[in-house]
Amino acid sequence: MEKQNNKITSRNIDFAKWYTDVVRAANLADYTSVKGCIAIEPNGYAIWEKMQEILDKEFKKLGHVNCQMPLLIPENLLNKEKDLVEGFAPEVAWVTIGGQKELEEKLCIRPTSETLFCDYYKNHVKSHRDLPKLYNQWCNVLRWEKETRPFLRSREFLWQEGHTIHATAEEAKKETDQMLEVYYNFFNDVLAIPSIKGRKTEKEKFAGAEYTLTNEALMYNGVALQSSTSHYFGQKFSSAYDVKFTSIENKEEYVYQTSWGTTTRMIGALIMVHSDDYGLVLPPRIAPKQVVIVPIGNNDEVINLSNKINKELLENNITSYIDNTDKSPGFKFAEAEVNGIPVRIEIGARDLEQNKITFARRDTREKMIENKDINIVDYVSNLLETIQKDMYERALKRRNELTFEAHNMSDIENILNTQPGFIHAMWCGDEACELKIKEIKGCKSRCITEEPPIDTKCVCCGKEAKHHVIWGIQY
Amino acid sequence: MEKQNNKITSRNIDFAKWYTDVVRAANLADYTSVKGCIAIEPNGYAIWEKMQEILDKEFKKLGHVNCQMPLLIPENLLNKEKDLVEGFAPEVAWVTIGGQKELEEKLCIRPTSETLFCDYYKNHVKSHRDLPKLYNQWCNVLRWEKETRPFLRSREFLWQEGHTIHATAEEAKKETDQMLEVYYNFFNDVLAIPSIKGRKTEKEKFAGAEYTLTNEALMYNGVALQSSTSHYFGQKFSSAYDVKFTSIENKEEYVYQTSWGTTTRMIGALIMVHSDDYGLVLPPRIAPKQVVIVPIGNNDEVINLSNKINKELLENNITSYIDNTDKSPGFKFAEAEVNGIPVRIEIGARDLEQNKITFARRDTREKMIENKDINIVDYVSNLLETIQKDMYERALKRRNELTFEAHNMSDIENILNTQPGFIHAMWCGDEACELKIKEIKGCKSRCITEEPPIDTKCVCCGKEAKHHVIWGIQY
Repeated sequence: MEKQNNKITSRNIDFAKWYTDVVRAANLADYTSVKGCIAIEPNGYAIWEKMQEILDKEFKKLGHVNCQMPLLIPENLLNKEKDLVEGFAPEVAWVTIGGQKELEEKLCIRPTSETLFCDYYKNHVKSHRDLPKLYNQWCNVLRWEKETRPFLRSREFLWQEGHTIHATAEEAKKETDQMLEVYYNFFNDVLAIPSIKGRKTEKEKFAGAEYTLTNEALMYNGVALQSSTSHYFGQKFSSAYDVKFTSIENKEEYVYQTSWGTTTRMIGALIMVHSDDYGLVLPPRIAPKQVVIVPIGNNDEVINLSNKINKELLENNITSYIDNTDKSPGFKFAEAEVNGIPVRIEIGARDLEQNKITFARRDTREKMIENKDINIVDYVSNLLETIQKDMYERALKRRNELTFEAHNMSDIENILNTQPGFIHAMWCGDEACELKIKEIKGCKSRCITEEPPIDTKCVCCGKEAKHHVIWGIQY
Repeated sequence: MEKQNNKITSRNIDFAKWYTDVVRAANLADYTSVKGCIAIEPNGYAIWEKMQEILDKEFKKLGHVNCQMPLLIPENLLNKEKDLVEGFAPEVAWVTIGGQKELEEKLCIRPTSETLFCDYYKNHVKSHRDLPKLYNQWCNVLRWEKETRPFLRSREFLWQEGHTIHATAEEAKKETDQMLEVYYNFFNDVLAIPSIKGRKTEKEKFAGAEYTLTNEALMYNGVALQSSTSHYFGQKFSSAYDVKFTSIENKEEYVYQTSWGTTTRMIGALIMVHSDDYGLVLPPRIAPKQVVIVPIGNNDEVINLSNKINKELLENNITSYIDNTDKSPGFKFAEAEVNGIPVRIEIGARDLEQNKITFARRDTREKMIENKDINIVDYVSNLLETIQKDMYERALKRRNELTFEAHNMSDIENILNTQPGFIHAMWCGDEACELKIKEIKGCKSRCITEEPPIDTKCVCCGKEAKHHVIWGIQY
């Protein structure tokens, strides 16, 4: 099905509509007959595969191994840790019939797998020599969300969940920090999305965690997105699920645990940070296809040069392809644009008469006419790196423009009435103040940052401030 | 947890017990608190990752792309194709509660995804220009099996399912053949499992298929395993789900469809074909780790040479690692054996005094003492290829020994009373005869083969034979 980019609503007119238009126009995902669940189409799934490839390599470098726990959790197993149950029970789906029979015990579809990992570890850890266990799984999970939006929030989504257990609190805390750092670097260096590291407040932390670390990103419209989290559980789960080991000192102790994850929502972040009214814009490091070559006309020289350049780029690990469908050049240009191919090379007979070929950047839509005898591999490599860097810088500039300071409640109101964004403000640590701030357009604490204080008093109650918090409206 | 291979029951004493002992001893999978569902442990999952990597590359070479459809299927969608419903309804699990509310329509967990792909394609195909669509997904599926066995048959399993649609029957049939060939080559060349290609009988074909092609393998104990299938649907699903396109002749037509899949049961096949009383034996091309280096003692020369060899092997794409845990050499040898590492290199101070190092093959448990100055990369590469080839030859020899001919019913009975295996016998094509043969120890038609006839009459009724069929007892 051919897509026209002129079907995309302008980002500045209706951001929500623009977002779903881009998702559809770039064939990333579509709605299905299953309410709240999307079909991830090949263009979208290829981005996910690239994300998996890069992150999986990082995880493995740090000693993690992959495994696969069951999809289903028996009710009694889920119920063992009370915070987790309270946090997740409202949003799980239950299997009650299997093989045409009512089940004796209902089974929920995993919303997250702490319970299953604990249940497994319990039988596989005896001594400190069995520790640490650094397991991860790539899988689907399900949460019965009421309002959904492709990639950002859907009932079923794909993710990875790391679950590690350790002999000491110190080691587990180090793991929690380390994995947040892996995500942080992935967002900044690969997705070109400037990310803020911080700790969630008690109210916003993961159900059952001692603390939750988070990466927070800001979308083009100033709405925040929690983009990855890393949790330290201490011994909360291991005591509930009885995961014990014999320490070096020959004492029986509960293991110290972490979990960390990120999801297909990263695809949503890529769209909302980088894309424009012409469709998807992808940073070169995450683009499944980095270069498209469009031959213009059927001239032998055009075809031969297209093939030659394509071959050279592929040999140098630049993912290139030739669009030799029977569509018109203009249509091919528009299609490459809507699909977010970072670089387009146009090779035409008339240009070649003057020894010229044309390069087009997707991010800026700029065209560069170059001599056909330049070193193409060097030129394209540099161009891809420049695009990657420029995309990050533009996203950072946008975030900085949408980052504000508030010293009292009317500051917050004024900011949110004009243009939402990241709001820096001091906080006393009292949940009552957090709730009062939330009354202003649902503004929530994104994270507690380690940045220096900007005031001495709580933005809400005026009492002594304990934390420098970044606030915002969230997806 | 340290494992001892002496806990493995002998294969010749109790094959079923031996199998589960190997699964546990090699830490491939374990039972869970979820009945009929296993946890695939890192050692097992690494094999699956390797299978995915190799097959996925083959699929993509042939133009297939990956996507992801929902986990859940609404009841009315499943019900649209009557053969599929009849085939799968008895073995699905139903979600009836979501977000603490009874659902208006129950949703089944996908046992296979023809319905979802059809529902998607229906909205995404208009013209012959949109065809073919060559989609595949890697995912989990669920079938409410009564008797389960790790990898071979479990309620939840991992697989890939390709679903393609085409403008002509001819093209779809070609795809069906081609994908069977991909599996066939994968079994023979990568898994070192000799495989037989054929067509399922009407009775044994996939619910809803026009015909089903299959690869059948024979386990060490003579029991058959259906190891991958490729289905031709014609227009059966596309007419039920209304997937239409406008042909070149501008006529509206239903698309022609295929599906093809293979699962984590391949890990079970690897065990049952190749492994022995010492644990897992893996063909080098599928082994996640091909070489283990065991330094004996703390001598500098030993350590340096171990590091040097490890580095050289890794640089030449041989997946090698050094076992420098504090276990005893004997324990390390046993552990590498139980885990099926194809080649072990032992480097000890005493041997080095005589310029010797020792190589051990996992498959034959043979030891070779070589001069330490040989070209290690060449030597190990050759050894791995020899092991791969020898493993295939041994499996083929075993299969040939367990392949029989039957010309009447008592032949079948005699064979199955002595030693099950593949039984070649002619068949009239009548299901009544198929059912009579099944009465003998559950012996089923594995596939119709293109091999020349071995008789003129049906093995059962004595009437004119139509097909040369391979029969066997199955997992």
